[in-house]
Amino acid sequence: MSSMLRGRGIHYLQKLKAANIPTALLEKGQNRVIDASLTLIRERAKLKGELLRALGGVTASTTLLGVPLGHNSSFLQGPAFAPPRIREAIWCGSTNSTTEEGKQLSDPRVLTDVGDVPVQEIRDCGVDDDRLMNVISESVKLVMDEDPLRPLVLGGDHSISFPVVRAVSEKLGGPVDILHLDAHPDIYHSFEGNMYSHASSFARIMEGGYARRLLQVGLRSITSEGREQGKRFGVEQYEMRTFSRDRHLLENLMWTVLILPFAPGVSHIEPGGLSFRDVLNILHNLQADVVAADVVEFNPQRDTVDGMTAMVAAKLVRELTAKISK
Amino acid sequence: MSSMLRGRGIHYLQKLKAANIPTALLEKGQNRVIDASLTLIRERAKLKGELLRALGGVTASTTLLGVPLGHNSSFLQGPAFAPPRIREAIWCGSTNSTTEEGKQLSDPRVLTDVGDVPVQEIRDCGVDDDRLMNVISESVKLVMDEDPLRPLVLGGDHSISFPVVRAVSEKLGGPVDILHLDAHPDIYHSFEGNMYSHASSFARIMEGGYARRLLQVGLRSITSEGREQGKRFGVEQYEMRTFSRDRHLLENLMWTVLILPFAPGVSHIEPGGLSFRDVLNILHNLQADVVAADVVEFNPQRDTVDGMTAMVAAKLVRELTAKISK
Amino acid sequence: MSSMLRGRGIHYLQKLKAANIPTALLEKGQNRVIDASLTLIRERAKLKGELLRALGGVTASTTLLGVPLGHNSSFLQGPAFAPPRIREAIWCGSTNSTTEEGKQLSDPRVLTDVGDVPVQEIRDCGVDDDRLMNVISESVKLVMDEDPLRPLVLGGDHSISFPVVRAVSEKLGGPVDILHLDAHPDIYHSFEGNMYSHASSFARIMEGGYARRLLQVGLRSITSEGREQGKRFGVEQYEMRTFSRDRHLLENLMWTVLILPFAPGVSHIEPGGLSFRDVLNILHNLQADVVAADVVEFNPQRDTVDGMTAMVAAKLVRELTAKISK
Amino acid sequence: MSSMLRGRGIHYLQKLKAANIPTALLEKGQNRVIDASLTLIRERAKLKGELLRALGGVTASTTLLGVPLGHNSSFLQGPAFAPPRIREAIWCGSTNSTTEEGKQLSDPRVLTDVGDVPVQEIRDCGVDDDRLMNVISESVKLVMDEDPLRPLVLGGDHSISFPVVRAVSEKLGGPVDILHLDAHPDIYHSFEGNMYSHASSFARIMEGGYARRLLQVGLRSITSEGREQGKRFGVEQYEMRTFSRDRHLLENLMWTVLILPFAPGVSHIEPGGLSFRDVLNILHNLQADVVAADVVEFNPQRDTVDGMTAMVAAKLVRELTAKISK
Amino acid sequence: MSSMLRGRGIHYLQKLKAANIPTALLEKGQNRVIDASLTLIRERAKLKGELLRALGGVTASTTLLGVPLGHNSSFLQGPAFAPPRIREAIWCGSTNSTTEEGKQLSDPRVLTDVGDVPVQEIRDCGVDDDRLMNVISESVKLVMDEDPLRPLVLGGDHSISFPVVRAVSEKLGGPVDILHLDAHPDIYHSFEGNMYSHASSFARIMEGGYARRLLQVGLRSITSEGREQGKRFGVEQYEMRTFSRDRHLLENLMWTVLILPFAPGVSHIEPGGLSFRDVLNILHNLQADVVAADVVEFNPQRDTVDGMTAMVAAKLVRELTAKISK
Amino acid sequence: MSSMLRGRGIHYLQKLKAANIPTALLEKGQNRVIDASLTLIRERAKLKGELLRALGGVTASTTLLGVPLGHNSSFLQGPAFAPPRIREAIWCGSTNSTTEEGKQLSDPRVLTDVGDVPVQEIRDCGVDDDRLMNVISESVKLVMDEDPLRPLVLGGDHSISFPVVRAVSEKLGGPVDILHLDAHPDIYHSFEGNMYSHASSFARIMEGGYARRLLQVGLRSITSEGREQGKRFGVEQYEMRTFSRDRHLLENLMWTVLILPFAPGVSHIEPGGLSFRDVLNILHNLQADVVAADVVEFNPQRDTVDGMTAMVAAKLVRELTAKISK
Repeated sequence: MSSMLRGRGIHYLQKLKAANIPTALLEKGQNRVIDASLTLIRERAKLKGELLRALGGVTASTTLLGVPLGHNSSFLQGPAFAPPRIREAIWCGSTNSTTEEGKQLSDPRVLTDVGDVPVQEIRDCGVDDDRLMNVISESVKLVMDEDPLRPLVLGGDHSISFPVVRAVSEKLGGPVDILHLDAHPDIYHSFEGNMYSHASSFARIMEGGYARRLLQVGLRSITSEGREQGKRFGVEQYEMRTFSRDRHLLENLMWTVLILPFAPGVSHIEPGGLSFRDVLNILHNLQADVVAADVVEFNPQRDTVDGMTAMVAAKLVRELTAKISK
Repeated sequence: MSSMLRGRGIHYLQKLKAANIPTALLEKGQNRVIDASLTLIRERAKLKGELLRALGGVTASTTLLGVPLGHNSSFLQGPAFAPPRIREAIWCGSTNSTTEEGKQLSDPRVLTDVGDVPVQEIRDCGVDDDRLMNVISESVKLVMDEDPLRPLVLGGDHSISFPVVRAVSEKLGGPVDILHLDAHPDIYHSFEGNMYSHASSFARIMEGGYARRLLQVGLRSITSEGREQGKRFGVEQYEMRTFSRDRHLLENLMWTVLILPFAPGVSHIEPGGLSFRDVLNILHNLQADVVAADVVEFNPQRDTVDGMTAMVAAKLVRELTAKISK
Repeated sequence: MSSMLRGRGIHYLQKLKAANIPTALLEKGQNRVIDASLTLIRERAKLKGELLRALGGVTASTTLLGVPLGHNSSFLQGPAFAPPRIREAIWCGSTNSTTEEGKQLSDPRVLTDVGDVPVQEIRDCGVDDDRLMNVISESVKLVMDEDPLRPLVLGGDHSISFPVVRAVSEKLGGPVDILHLDAHPDIYHSFEGNMYSHASSFARIMEGGYARRLLQVGLRSITSEGREQGKRFGVEQYEMRTFSRDRHLLENLMWTVLILPFAPGVSHIEPGGLSFRDVLNILHNLQADVVAADVVEFNPQRDTVDGMTAMVAAKLVRELTAKISK
Repeated sequence: MSSMLRGRGIHYLQKLKAANIPTALLEKGQNRVIDASLTLIRERAKLKGELLRALGGVTASTTLLGVPLGHNSSFLQGPAFAPPRIREAIWCGSTNSTTEEGKQLSDPRVLTDVGDVPVQEIRDCGVDDDRLMNVISESVKLVMDEDPLRPLVLGGDHSISFPVVRAVSEKLGGPVDILHLDAHPDIYHSFEGNMYSHASSFARIMEGGYARRLLQVGLRSITSEGREQGKRFGVEQYEMRTFSRDRHLLENLMWTVLILPFAPGVSHIEPGGLSFRDVLNILHNLQADVVAADVVEFNPQRDTVDGMTAMVAAKLVRELTAKISK
Repeated sequence: MSSMLRGRGIHYLQKLKAANIPTALLEKGQNRVIDASLTLIRERAKLKGELLRALGGVTASTTLLGVPLGHNSSFLQGPAFAPPRIREAIWCGSTNSTTEEGKQLSDPRVLTDVGDVPVQEIRDCGVDDDRLMNVISESVKLVMDEDPLRPLVLGGDHSISFPVVRAVSEKLGGPVDILHLDAHPDIYHSFEGNMYSHASSFARIMEGGYARRLLQVGLRSITSEGREQGKRFGVEQYEMRTFSRDRHLLENLMWTVLILPFAPGVSHIEPGGLSFRDVLNILHNLQADVVAADVVEFNPQRDTVDGMTAMVAAKLVRELTAKISK
Repeated sequence: MSSMLRGRGIHYLQKLKAANIPTALLEKGQNRVIDASLTLIRERAKLKGELLRALGGVTASTTLLGVPLGHNSSFLQGPAFAPPRIREAIWCGSTNSTTEEGKQLSDPRVLTDVGDVPVQEIRDCGVDDDRLMNVISESVKLVMDEDPLRPLVLGGDHSISFPVVRAVSEKLGGPVDILHLDAHPDIYHSFEGNMYSHASSFARIMEGGYARRLLQVGLRSITSEGREQGKRFGVEQYEMRTFSRDRHLLENLMWTVLILPFAPGVSHIEPGGLSFRDVLNILHNLQADVVAADVVEFNPQRDTVDGMTAMVAAKLVRELTAKISK
């Protein structure tokens, strides 16, 4: 959705207010829409959970949850279009459904899908970002309610990592370990006045006490604020400049609880990052019980003609699924 | 979604059946998901209807309803990606929000939106096409329940015209007049064994007795079956070959009730069609009370780099809105 | 240049001011840069004028003047990249250098070039839009000083039409007739607070009394402000809706003095406009002494892969040249 | 093939000559390769002819003959890639195989294919353009030898129209009528010293006395040489400038014998031409016994991402087939 | 050629059979077409062989043989378009004709070309895949008959590796060593019922006893069937997961006889593979007498706008040529 | 500018000469245009220099100087379009303005801009390449006159490295050390007869004695002439073939004076080069006082749809700026 759509939503509500629409009428309607949205997520998660429990023999099973939110991105809002495009690339006929270590994605015990949070519809009813973030957190919890489902969230821009991590932490009852692969630390206090910006998600996560440990890999072009915030919150920042030196350490991580936000980074092009094989090496060698993950910032409108980035995002989803499900 | 995704859905259910999942468990879950989906549409339509009635002074108001369904298309299933892309083009900053005859789209009395039917989520729960078509019809009726809302449906491929027309006809209590602008008559009995194919929607409409009059404009390359079915159902078929001769008649249509399915036609390229100005002339000069419309078969994956076809689809939505709202 | 570049210019000056750079130092430097820029245009025009006068036998000769200005466009600022791209398309090997009525563009008496106004360099020195518009007007006058040169200005966005028309009118000593082919009237009082916006150029032209008659052709989606401003200034607005009715009149225009601003319209896509043959018919049949022209709003960044719009812009330049030179 | 490839071929022979390879050895080898190439065309045509005669009931049947020659084009030599791309577009799943007037292309009595002349292989053996043009003429005659086959030649650039027309004229025993739809007259004496250039094919045709009547439609930007050569050879040249006046005449042509060279014109972009519907109107209304046709100058390397021009070329082939076969 | 074309071929024969065309007539015609096709390859190979023997001083010389076959690919059949596109990239002006180790490609003793097997023409005559594979094997042998020519085969999809290896093995009188660089092992028993699928070529090769040793490098996402077939046939499979560990071994291979099938892999995108420099390192360090090679699965229709993959395929051909010729 | 434009310039002068235009008139005009061009560069450099000296505290400050020259490139002349495109990518909103080591590009003490040398305008006045190269050298010196400015030149094709290095060497009073990162050595005596070709710039530099040491990194496909010229001039050539062996040496260079010509290499695609991280590692670890740099051969017309190469060129400019400014 373009910035015009955002402006339009606000404008639309202003028109309604000027017309003396009773606030109660609007709020009651918004609540009913939010309730219906969460009911839909709940029912889909419940059905998938019931089926997996009936099948049996699974202790952790990945399920996709799409969050088509792009309006908190500072540049090019196309990530709102990403979830259906990534799903298409996962199942497209040009590759098989086996992961590198041999898991079968077509097995429902390995991968299911609970669909998208209806982000644009909720916003179009005039719901503000604060409540929208709550709806996202709530949706993640509804998925985690259904044992053995574990959420792999398809963004959307990087702003969704905050409500996702918050939900996981609250659900597990304490701070979690986070491995964050990205060009930027996304830890600014705010960006252009927006506290929920995609550039501020980790500031919110750290302030909220949702992370026990935050390890950021692949960084380049960190601003001085980025470095200071990193120091302030005790973030372990690994830069590309020193990757050849850090590689051994990063390819031998041993953790207990983990979340993996990942940005294939198309909107915010910053050349000179990790090769995709480097990313897979870190992921494959990671010794941890991965409880949730997100794949964010993929912008279909900036992809190459042959959809190369969609294929990268899809392959990442497949390998994350292999890591989560067991 | 690719054909692989379709095959995958079936495969997924087969795996579950082979694993002796009780049918009742699956069906109950599907019903709850369908109920939740329709509740979400109802609540969004209700909120928009309440707001418009509170504003007052409107007798007909256009509201968008997205139906991201692409699996009944015989070639390239990208129309499932169309609704968000068309919405973006409607509100994008490169054009203003005034129609050619001066209506203001940013006025909520002219245009609102009730979001998308969650087509892919419903299919992923194993719901068959028969019930899916019912969900689409039901959604259209839920919109029409809320006076003064009138649905402008964003496809999706052309197969959705059948459930849309059926809903409108049943809601109005009798057959309706239809003006269909397309390269193909889409009136085959079935296509590759699929009765719900995008090439068969008008066969289903005519068999069901939902049309009083069906006028097809812009046709080219009609097969012999297409001509025979046209004759059998009493369709008025106007071909491009004779458009210079028919132009006067088509630019002076006077009807009472009308629905306008329209295919900007990117997936199924068939050069030599109506110019976009010809389409607008027919639409602007039409004397009728348009009760519903759909814009189908736009495939974002086959658009030009500058999104030219998205802009065409969006402009069509804008001018249809001007025709419907009053 | 992106909006970031614009913001950057301002930021850059603020830094300098905060650092207590003496205003006099800055202003003196800016004046020297502007003087040098105008000297360069003057010398180039002079050389071309001298050569043509030495050749003799020409009463009017077209010369290209590029104005790579894109920062007053409300959406997509790529028109700043247009002048070199249009020149390339004019001379590219895929077409010959003969116009439809047989003029030879490779004859220096028919077409020369005085290069670009260094717009970006001037702005980067902190010169404001007011003075920049004066530099553009001044450059146009420098060209017209050199008999028999007549300027065909390559934009840039539509904001440059104001300084171009102002210069022509002041040079000729009175208001001129203007034929404006565009989707939009570009006659808003201001756009997002910018009086020099590409959407306001004709408001400035009419207020300044630079037009005796303004005829706008090809309009669609006029806002109510657009209609009111049109009425207020006595503009003759011809809309696409009625083009089939107006065609005869527009293909038989007889005027004395004329300027032809033209927007091939790529950034601000608004489908359903004049066919290119319609444009050429109006131009070929026009009976007038064309004293200047501009071709604006071509955005190379939104062109198709095979540069189709560049070829359209170039062909328009070629046919305008044929109309001007004699 | 790029101009480098051309230069390379020459260079390659020069190296061989410098190495004192006996001329007889080279010539004998070339002759054997040419003989084998023609044998292959003959056998394919013979098989298709035998099958059609066995089927019976056909008096004229279209067969495709590809001539992937691009090295005589002055700009962008991609037309050598066209024949397979056009065939793919003819049979691709996005359209049906019925023509506008109802002929069935999947019926072998309507359309067959004898494959490509191995142009690049012959050139790579050092065969010069003179002999290559003879091979093309010979191939066309081999097709016409097999009653009821009639050749529809897929270029390649426009230079192949000369050997095609020559073959048809020689086969029929006298000059033929030619309807030529193109932006340019292609009637220069030579282009950059090349007598076989794609810009000179009609000069060679007229000099050879192969045309009784040559009618050129859609012309724009004719050079003075183009006009003079047209006058000299008695060509009837219809320009786009006057198309609205000439339309009636061109849509009511009555001829006896006819060949239809056609250039969809992508390499040599010259905007403002016939709409595709105009082309079809001329073709559908033409009263003539069409004995052969060619479709040339389509350059796949300059097509849009969705292959729009390939679809136009394919549709033209389909409608030409409908005109030829009976 | 699209799947439609394939279906069409079958349909076409069915029509002929239904029409009682005598089988003998059809078979005799097919045999003559196949004979003529092989004669053409033979004559071209003979001429190139004679020239090289006359030049003297060469013990092994690479010659290109194109096999434009795409119908055995499971997804996107564009590899049929590859051979001319690769040739163009080899000779295009943007690079010189020297290999990394200094061989001159413009020297006919290093590289010649015997053109394409007329795959599509043979199929269009109704020849089945079994005989088509024989024609390809026969063509490879005809090249090897002409000492010192060694074939570098340009695919086409990966299904052609079977007839190529079979021919080389039969010609040399025993099994050969194969180094296969690809994302997938292509060793399925069959794919969608097709024994000649591009995913089954190495199953056919191993069953036929044509390989002494098969070493596969770059694999990722191997299915369980892929692993089992690999084990069953004694294939040495090296996966990307362990490439950093295997690199030393793979960069120091010492073999006697070798064939190098290579897939730059555009149709079947599977991110995270060998870098192109890794491929070149393996190739440059290989100590072996390379007797033949193929470059397959390049799909021009999925290339980037600047033809990057064509340049990769071409560079691979150039470096393979340097390895083969001596 | 296309080769046609070049041809056109020559043709244009020939026409003028044939028309007996006095040579003195032409030369005087050319001199005035050149003087005005240099005055404009001088004034812009002076203003930037004055501002920086007023700010104080800087010993070296990078300033961009664009040289939009593309007519000396042997293939695809698009580099003339590069300077504005690179500037846009530097300041575009999708990245921040901090370098990897933390410098702030938005600080005028780190980076300013003196605009473009008006290359095309000077050539269009008939100025020959010899004098044009002098104008470029002169412009570089004008920048270096203004302490603390150091030029980072944005090409243009690689031919500009000669006048840039010459100017730096003459200004510093002796030969300089050069680190050249490129696929090709660009050290041919001449290319297609052009001594100023982009493939000959380093031959001119070495002959002129402008380099103390020339180290070329990333080379592949060196011709025998390239190797011989390298040996003749004492160039240290490091090839990609041995990069893994040379990496340590190249990542630990210690020099005193240095210039860094760099070609991101899009026009002349030669796969298998340095990864961008390799380039940055060499640059970051370099211990030297970098006095000037150029970034050449970026061709916007061959970039991917999402402008990936522009982002690479821009990032290189940013990191070079960090290296130069202090």
